[in-house]
Parts: sequence; structure tokens; C-alpha cells
Amino acid sequence: MPGISPTTVETLRWIGGRDGVLRMIDQTRLPGECVEIECRDVEAVFEAIRSLRVRGAPAIGIAAAYGVCLGLQSGSRTRESPDSHPDDPNSHDFRGAPRCGENELYRRIEEVTARLAESRPTAVNLFWALDRMRRTAAGLRGKLPPAEIAERLLGEARAIHEEDRAMCHAIGRHGQALLTDGSGVLTHCNAGGLATAEYGTALAVFYAAQDAGKRLHVYADETRPLLQGARLTAWELKQRGIEVTLICDSMAAQVMREGRVQAVVVGADRIAANGDTANKIGTYGVALLAAAHEIPFYVAAPTSTFDLSITGGDEIPIEQRAASEITHGFGRQTAPDGIGVYNPAFDVTPARLIKAIICEKGLIEPVNRETIAATMRART
Amino acid sequence: MPGISPTTVETLRWIGGRDGVLRMIDQTRLPGECVEIECRDVEAVFEAIRSLRVRGAPAIGIAAAYGVCLGLQSGSRTRESPDSHPDDPNSHDFRGAPRCGENELYRRIEEVTARLAESRPTAVNLFWALDRMRRTAAGLRGKLPPAEIAERLLGEARAIHEEDRAMCHAIGRHGQALLTDGSGVLTHCNAGGLATAEYGTALAVFYAAQDAGKRLHVYADETRPLLQGARLTAWELKQRGIEVTLICDSMAAQVMREGRVQAVVVGADRIAANGDTANKIGTYGVALLAAAHEIPFYVAAPTSTFDLSITGGDEIPIEQRAASEITHGFGRQTAPDGIGVYNPAFDVTPARLIKAIICEKGLIEPVNRETIAATMRART
Repeated sequence: MPGISPTTVETLRWIGGRDGVLRMIDQTRLPGECVEIECRDVEAVFEAIRSLRVRGAPAIGIAAAYGVCLGLQSGSRTRESPDSHPDDPNSHDFRGAPRCGENELYRRIEEVTARLAESRPTAVNLFWALDRMRRTAAGLRGKLPPAEIAERLLGEARAIHEEDRAMCHAIGRHGQALLTDGSGVLTHCNAGGLATAEYGTALAVFYAAQDAGKRLHVYADETRPLLQGARLTAWELKQRGIEVTLICDSMAAQVMREGRVQAVVVGADRIAANGDTANKIGTYGVALLAAAHEIPFYVAAPTSTFDLSITGGDEIPIEQRAASEITHGFGRQTAPDGIGVYNPAFDVTPARLIKAIICEKGLIEPVNRETIAATMRART
Repeated sequence: MPGISPTTVETLRWIGGRDGVLRMIDQTRLPGECVEIECRDVEAVFEAIRSLRVRGAPAIGIAAAYGVCLGLQSGSRTRESPDSHPDDPNSHDFRGAPRCGENELYRRIEEVTARLAESRPTAVNLFWALDRMRRTAAGLRGKLPPAEIAERLLGEARAIHEEDRAMCHAIGRHGQALLTDGSGVLTHCNAGGLATAEYGTALAVFYAAQDAGKRLHVYADETRPLLQGARLTAWELKQRGIEVTLICDSMAAQVMREGRVQAVVVGADRIAANGDTANKIGTYGVALLAAAHEIPFYVAAPTSTFDLSITGGDEIPIEQRAASEITHGFGRQTAPDGIGVYNPAFDVTPARLIKAIICEKGLIEPVNRETIAATMRART
């Protein structure tokens, strides 16, 4: 497995032991400035998730898991006990068993996970991570003293963090073999380290290629309406010293026509059992343009993205978002008052346009119901 | 020929006779507000063209022609005589022959046309219109008194204006026959009335369909980076009561996939002898997406757009524009400092993707070297 470059972007960092703090890049301040904020209690994590300082399903899950650990520290603050203090007899201090009983610990875990679950009501990874923390705690009840259970929960948060990191690295490792030195590649939106522990999914492929000594030139679609490509992908790639050129979404066809792109790699929000892939709006168009120029189109995503209960893309509902994202996108009005707007959040790329899906278990190629089912059954 | 709806957008209006004024919609204030400014002298027209208050090649040509007329009015101001006044003996007053000699008139015409030619150095229609005004004046030298020549020049400006109007109406008339009642249509950028005397080219097709009693639903690509679709096309269509939905460029494929679009109509900057068409960046991508969904793709443009000296699209140079249009487009920075940017102003759609070219002489279909040559030879 290739090593991590020194310029790696670390979306989230736990500093210290059980008394530690959670540091995270404040993504709302990118690309203007790269600032880490420090979360010392549950409310700080809650606020960071709610206000999109940390975004991307895996990254939110990791932040929430660490948030539970912060909630079990001495003097931790939540909405219900905003003024608690280490010396306060009502303070939650699970470091020393004599000071806190088991019932108090488990009551506190419920309080903290319930609070964090309110931060982004539709983020699946958030609930998954909180549930995993709760189940870990439940499995230890009565077997260890409270302080040790809190210690184990920090271990579980670290495991969630590390598993995501390892999964992204595996995706990168499998995907980078598809790219040759000197290639031009194109990506859409931000399926990068900022959305995960570190490497990302689509961008992991580029990072792993770089780690393997291949030089790439990445064309990043700016990705209207919310410009994740311009704000986040361009920034991430530049941070890691990968050559990147920002283009408007409408320029992808021209860039392909000029022979500048040898592969397209994108992420995924949800993949149906037949391989139809929902991803950021614009992805389907890029896939059609790639097909027209005979450029291979790859999807990079962990197997957790597959939803085998959905047989095909037609069953995936298309979320509509606010008109203001288009009419008042970046500090000024750019369209007439009251204009009709259509703003689907994502689209579905049919499996036939996808040359391969790159997951942590390897490549799924060709993309169809059978190869996907076989991969899901296979061990990593 | 269908009549003009009462809600017609009049890009430019000459109010009054030879002492009149030029009114124009200040396009820099759209879509926030629709304000007409009044130009009373050459410098006002110069400033309006330079600062893009009036834009679009045909509209610039018309404004410049009227600008010449303003320059021949009493007390007209140019850079060289900013303080002249009707009662000033040095004032240019060509209304009364006794006050002004023929030599003075022709010297003034040269001065005014030279000044206006500096306003947008690359606008072909600007030079064409100024040249036409100068040639008209030259043809009358010695044959009429100065006041009457000035009168004839106003007539020539009005003719340029009316010819453009008639040409756009003809394009609309020929094109609307391609559309059926209840259709969804998609356009890119602004090939509308604001760029011409009134009707535009691509949008003329929609206006004529409306005038013929057909209901359309237009999807307008916002057209990054400069958002002419959001700012101008959406506004124009709304003004005329045509149902319009604004989308980001990246949404066109999804809108097509959902069966919402039965035809695409776009304008053109330049068409090669074989039909390859240069137009606003993103047009080529839209043409590929239309082909993938088996939706007919039409180009609407006057025959003056054809450049028969260019045999094919590969010979059309692609202008690169400033990175800041992409990185600082919406009033604030949306990409990292110093990021590499590729910003081609237009792209070339190959003739094979164009079902027909709609020009003032009729439809060119199929689009190839022979049909284009035959159309150029034909009379209107």
C-alpha cells in the first residue's frame, strides 16, 4: 500500500488521549483560508456538523463518534447542561470511576447520541456511527468499570476513523492501476478527502496514482450550483501538489474534444443493484460526454454505497433543492425575481455508461447485477 | 408575418426626429431592474457600448449608427469638444445649412465614426455599421445640402435597425414551424432580443411560435461563466410571458432524460463553410447530449454569421478568457488563490450534430457545404 504523502489533508484529527480534543478543517472557510477549529464538547461538534464546517457522509460519521467521546469527558457541555464545570458536583466525569456510576454513564451516552443525531437529520452515516458507538457501549455494560468503557469508546471512534481511512486507501490502490503516467483525468463535485477521513473516493484514485509516482493532470468541474469542485476539489488537489485545472461544467465537452482527458473518475451517493449510480447533478451528462469521446468513465465508492434493495436507477427518487442556490448562489442575485427554477440535487448514470466501479474490494467490471452481487458476497 | 406582441423587449429606441435621442435598456442592470438610459450625444453612446450597457453584435451596430446621428446634432459633445453648446459658435449644428458647411459636416462624420469605432475594438458589426453610415454620406456628397444629408443618415440608421428587426422576424418565422404546441425547448446563452433590434435569433424562434399561438416551455441554461442565460434569456422570456425554467448547465442532460425537451435551439457566433458552428462555450456539449437523447438540435443565425473563408471548424481559433470570470464570478472568490483555470469563450459544434440551420432565407437542412453554398447564393 503506498504511503501517505506529507501534504495529506486531514479532515479530522483527535489530539491527545481520552481527555483529548477534536480538530477539524472548517470547510466553510475554504478555499479562502484553511483553518482548523477545535471542538472541546458535544455542542461544538453539533454546531460544526449543522453549519457544514464538516461535510460528507463519512466525515460526519467520524466527527459524531468523536463527539460522543467528548460528551463523556469531564465538564463536557451539552444544551441540557451548558454551564457544567469540572469542579461542579453535577459535572460528568467518567475518568474516575468513583465519581461516576455506570447508570450515569449510560444515561449520558443516550443524551449525547440523541443530541448529535439532531445535527443533520438525513445523514445516514451520522446515525450509523452513533448507533455503532451505542452498541459498543451496550456490549460492555457490566463488564468493565465506567472509565474503561469510556476508554473503549474512544477506541471505537478511532476504529471508525481508521476503517474509513483504510477503505479510501484501498479504493485508491485499486483505482490507480487504471491510470497511466501523464494522463489527463476529469472529476465532478468533491469525492475527496474532505468528505472522508483523508483520501476520499474518486480523489483517492488520484492520490494513490501520485503516491505510485504517476503524474496526472486533473480537470475539476466547478459543479454548479454549490461549486464543490471549485471550492473543495481544486483546493484539495492543489494542497497535495497535483496539477489541477478548474473548468466550468459547460467546458467538459470541449476539454474532452481537445484530447486532454483520458479517464473520468467520480464518486457516488447511492448505487442500485444493477449498477445505476446516483451522484451529484451533472454526473450523468459527464458520462454521456465521455461515451461520445470514447473516454472510460469510472465510479469510485465503498460497498456501503450500494443499496441492493433498489433494483434500478428509476427507483431512486431525485431530491429537489431550493431555487435560491441557482438564483442567488454566491452573494448576489443572478436571475430575475420569481423565475422558475429546476434544481435536482443529483442524477442517475445508467450502468451501461460506467466502465467499472472501483470499491475497497477491487474493481467491478463489467458493471451489472451479477458482478455487483458477487462483489458484495466476497470478503475484502 | 406574425405581429409583434405588446410585451416586446425593445433593446434600442430612437425617440423623435433628427433632434431625437437614443434610448436603450441598460443591460448591466438586468435582471435586477429594467431601466432605459437616454443617450443624447456621441460620448453617451460610446460609454454605453464600452461598458456593455448595450451588447450583442447587431445591437452594438445599431447603437453606433444612431450614435453617428447624435454626433451631427446641435451641441453634440465628443471627447474633442466636451463643452460645446447649441449657442456656442463652434458648436456643430447641421440642422440649418447656413450655419454649417459641407466640409464641416464630413469632417464631423469622420470624427464621430472614428470615436465610436474605439468603443469595442473587436466588434465586427460595429465597424460594419459605421462603415455603412460613412459610405452613405460619401454617396450623397455634393448632391444635397448638409441638413438633408444628416436627415438621410438618420434614415440609414433606421434602416439598419429595421433590417435587423426584419431579419430576426424572418428567422423566427422559418424556425417556429419546427416546433409543435406544448413542446419543451432548451437554449443556451442569450441569442435573444437584447442582442439585436428586438427578436433575437434563437429566441426569435420561440417568440414567433408564441405569436403563432403555440405554447412552449423553455429551459434556459444559466450559461457559466457569465450567466447570460440566467441574467438575460430568463428575463427576456419572462417579459414576454413565455414559460421559462432556469437550470444550471450541468442539469441539461437530466432535463432531457426526463423527456422535458423536444428541441434545442441556439444561436451562433460564426459558421464555417461546412456548417461547423462556433457558439458560446457549452453549446457543443448540449449538442452531444441532444444527440444522445435523439432530440433535434437547431442553430438559428443570419447568413451574415457564415464565414465561407473558413472551410471547417478546426480553423476557428478558440479565444481564451480571464480566469477571474470563473474564480470570482459571483461577487466573491469561489476557488483557491492561484488555481489553474481553462476558460475558452466558445466551442465548435460539428455540422453532423446540427439538424438544421435556421436563417432569414429559410432552413438549411441537411447541413453541409453544398446546402450552405446554395443558400448563400439564393435571394431572400
